[in-house]
Amino acid sequence: MINAPFLTACRDLLGRDHVLLESIDTDAYLVDQRKRYRGHALAVLRPANAAQVAALVRLCVAHGVPMVPQGGNTGLAGGATPDASGRQVVISLRRLDRIRQVDANNMTLTAEAGCLLANVQAAAAEAQRLFPLSLAAEGSCTIGGNLATNAGGTAVLRYGNARELCLGLEVVTPQGELWDGLRGLRKDNTGYDLRDLFIGAEGTLGLITAATLKLFAQPAARMTALAALDSPAHALALLNLAQRMAGPLLTGFELMSDFCLRLVAQVFPQQRYPFAHRYAQAVLLELSDNESEAHARDLLERLLSAAVDQSIVRDAIVANSLAQSNALWHLRESIPLAQSATGLNIKHDIAVPVSQVPAFLDATDPLVQRIAPGARMVTFGHLGDGNLHYNVMAPEDIDPDSFLGRYQSAVTAAVHDSVHAHHGSISAEHGLGQLKRNASAKYKSPVELALMRTLKTAFDPLGLMNPDKVLPD
Amino acid sequence: MINAPFLTACRDLLGRDHVLLESIDTDAYLVDQRKRYRGHALAVLRPANAAQVAALVRLCVAHGVPMVPQGGNTGLAGGATPDASGRQVVISLRRLDRIRQVDANNMTLTAEAGCLLANVQAAAAEAQRLFPLSLAAEGSCTIGGNLATNAGGTAVLRYGNARELCLGLEVVTPQGELWDGLRGLRKDNTGYDLRDLFIGAEGTLGLITAATLKLFAQPAARMTALAALDSPAHALALLNLAQRMAGPLLTGFELMSDFCLRLVAQVFPQQRYPFAHRYAQAVLLELSDNESEAHARDLLERLLSAAVDQSIVRDAIVANSLAQSNALWHLRESIPLAQSATGLNIKHDIAVPVSQVPAFLDATDPLVQRIAPGARMVTFGHLGDGNLHYNVMAPEDIDPDSFLGRYQSAVTAAVHDSVHAHHGSISAEHGLGQLKRNASAKYKSPVELALMRTLKTAFDPLGLMNPDKVLPD
Repeated sequence: MINAPFLTACRDLLGRDHVLLESIDTDAYLVDQRKRYRGHALAVLRPANAAQVAALVRLCVAHGVPMVPQGGNTGLAGGATPDASGRQVVISLRRLDRIRQVDANNMTLTAEAGCLLANVQAAAAEAQRLFPLSLAAEGSCTIGGNLATNAGGTAVLRYGNARELCLGLEVVTPQGELWDGLRGLRKDNTGYDLRDLFIGAEGTLGLITAATLKLFAQPAARMTALAALDSPAHALALLNLAQRMAGPLLTGFELMSDFCLRLVAQVFPQQRYPFAHRYAQAVLLELSDNESEAHARDLLERLLSAAVDQSIVRDAIVANSLAQSNALWHLRESIPLAQSATGLNIKHDIAVPVSQVPAFLDATDPLVQRIAPGARMVTFGHLGDGNLHYNVMAPEDIDPDSFLGRYQSAVTAAVHDSVHAHHGSISAEHGLGQLKRNASAKYKSPVELALMRTLKTAFDPLGLMNPDKVLPD
Repeated sequence: MINAPFLTACRDLLGRDHVLLESIDTDAYLVDQRKRYRGHALAVLRPANAAQVAALVRLCVAHGVPMVPQGGNTGLAGGATPDASGRQVVISLRRLDRIRQVDANNMTLTAEAGCLLANVQAAAAEAQRLFPLSLAAEGSCTIGGNLATNAGGTAVLRYGNARELCLGLEVVTPQGELWDGLRGLRKDNTGYDLRDLFIGAEGTLGLITAATLKLFAQPAARMTALAALDSPAHALALLNLAQRMAGPLLTGFELMSDFCLRLVAQVFPQQRYPFAHRYAQAVLLELSDNESEAHARDLLERLLSAAVDQSIVRDAIVANSLAQSNALWHLRESIPLAQSATGLNIKHDIAVPVSQVPAFLDATDPLVQRIAPGARMVTFGHLGDGNLHYNVMAPEDIDPDSFLGRYQSAVTAAVHDSVHAHHGSISAEHGLGQLKRNASAKYKSPVELALMRTLKTAFDPLGLMNPDKVLPD
């Protein structure tokens, strides 16, 4: 597929080096993180700044070329992978990687879309500020991608999703116009909320080129603890108590089942099962404290001792140092790694109202067993947000690949139906991309789908911005 | 203006008692809070529930009748007042006043649009939870109106605006369809953010009938202090220090000039000037603490003593009790009352980046003096959000009415230009309504105005939802 006049114009605009055509150059852009989707592209285009992005979009419009914006290409729903036609272009935002401004007194930072999340965090830290968005891919994902997918992560309980951390945006519209909405204001009620429309739209309504982000005071200390409990209902009771006693100091609340902890210990023998006895569930709690480490530890100890007194918690470990805190987080972060090491799983990124988590698990675990007897549940996640990574692993004696082939679609359909019955979301933090756009539509009302289509048609009447993503067929 | 078939259909739908036609019944709905706007209406319609609202909107569409939604009618920008034609109807949401659900474990509450804000706060408190939105009109404004205008208030520093406090909405579209988006989820990335599009749209894109709101753990104590300082720059340094030392416990940070405090003491002699000496500025700080009153007071004392050591603060009063805390808040809340008591002011509800507040005041005060020599500045507001009520009072020897008549438009234009030059907003928390829709357009880019019009046309092609509000002529 060659479109010579278009490619010539791209080269004139971007320079020859930034119009990639050879598969050795383009391959990494054409396959998604989980290697579920592999596309083709007319070219991979690497503009250097927002003005070039705008000019490039106008060029694509003039030539009728569909565009797929891409950041760090770490998405988990195929939202940044082109289709198989070879007629689309990938617009990589990675060269837009400047931190434009840090305004410490305004608690804001303005970053271009292609900045790595880790670099945004570092720029904030350099100014003695915290940018709290934190997720596994932070070393390779970009802030533009985080905003386009409204990324979540481990600190949502206290700081919100990417959406809540953004005050202003710069966006190139599907017509190639540059909207400068880079406001650093905490209050601004002068018209429609365009910002939040572009956030989470996965590049289907426009292309984010920069953002003004909220910063926070850096806490003096972070302290974690691990609590052993008998059930998710006890974990919910602990959450309640922790929110009452620690209020906004509670920045992490992660649930892990006994099976998850044993899996980690089995795959990574240096990470031992943390308790002397086995308990059905464990919760990792994190406090972020602006006073001192001593204050945080004292509060955690009082909290857990109250929880033991109230028979909510059976055993607990409070970290004695930052190193111990990190070790507890490492345990939590090892769960997906241990999972991958044992073969493919049927994965679900779901959320239900926090109060519904125990009921959801009680209802859904048996459904899965009925479909796939002996399947092992790898249930963990951000309980404080009602967000579970509700993963289903093959029975010990069944090959993971054939397990997936046989059960994936039935299990996923049952899980999603149950999520919907519990008023939940089938994509809590990963977005829809191409992976879940049709599944999601099954649970949305015709009114909502019609409103989404109205928006898409109004903003992108030619349908050239990341086609066949988010919206259902 | 009579439209008999339409009114008959309205009576059939709502019952005769809820179709108000006589001026004795309708008057209160047709004039805004500040009595700046007085409209006429074909009728004032009072549906009882969301289904009736939807049916009513379909009826209005069928008869081509423009609709003006109204909550508590406490808005400050004329957004809920009909025009003078007598062809529009006011749809009052006040009868939709049920708290549909409180889910304490999910930290959510679902309220109908017509619930008074104070009743939402009370329902949360009954479940030992906090709904933190708080503003002067809370006893008479409705949560639907708060969301339609994205209301701010005194707790935005910690909890955000109304937008940040809402998880889900129920909305009647301009076509009279009911969208059930009442989700109680902390994470949900399944499509476009319709919720935030309706929030702050002042009823021009649809009609909010209910909302699912975020609750928080009730703090164990709230403690306030009043600090005396030499300048807004010192206040900014204090904010910085307070955020570092108290982090998210800081829930209020209100600036008041010496003139404001003297004005209160003059109008309400029982409220004395709080310090032994006069200082140029005062800051009210509030901490909300989940531990104890003693912990909060200790932290406030450490904070203020550090601020004195660093020569940021000249003098300080830390409240010794809840009563003293309330007395300090009362001082702050008396400023607008003292202002009203001395006659009309030229009022501005503006925001700039927090870091720009000192520069904005240094630049703008002289501009106002040049236009209106001797004018007295009544400057106070939510410094933590960069939101100032930057009000201009007549010189002592000039009649307020004639002062307004002579200077209002020139002063306001100069203030707004300066706000814009400092990257600020000319409507921080009151919205645009009819008051500021044209002024606001002056500072918006053609791209942004075009996107706003695109949205309006796509959602409300007939232009029947709250016409001539928000968008410029």
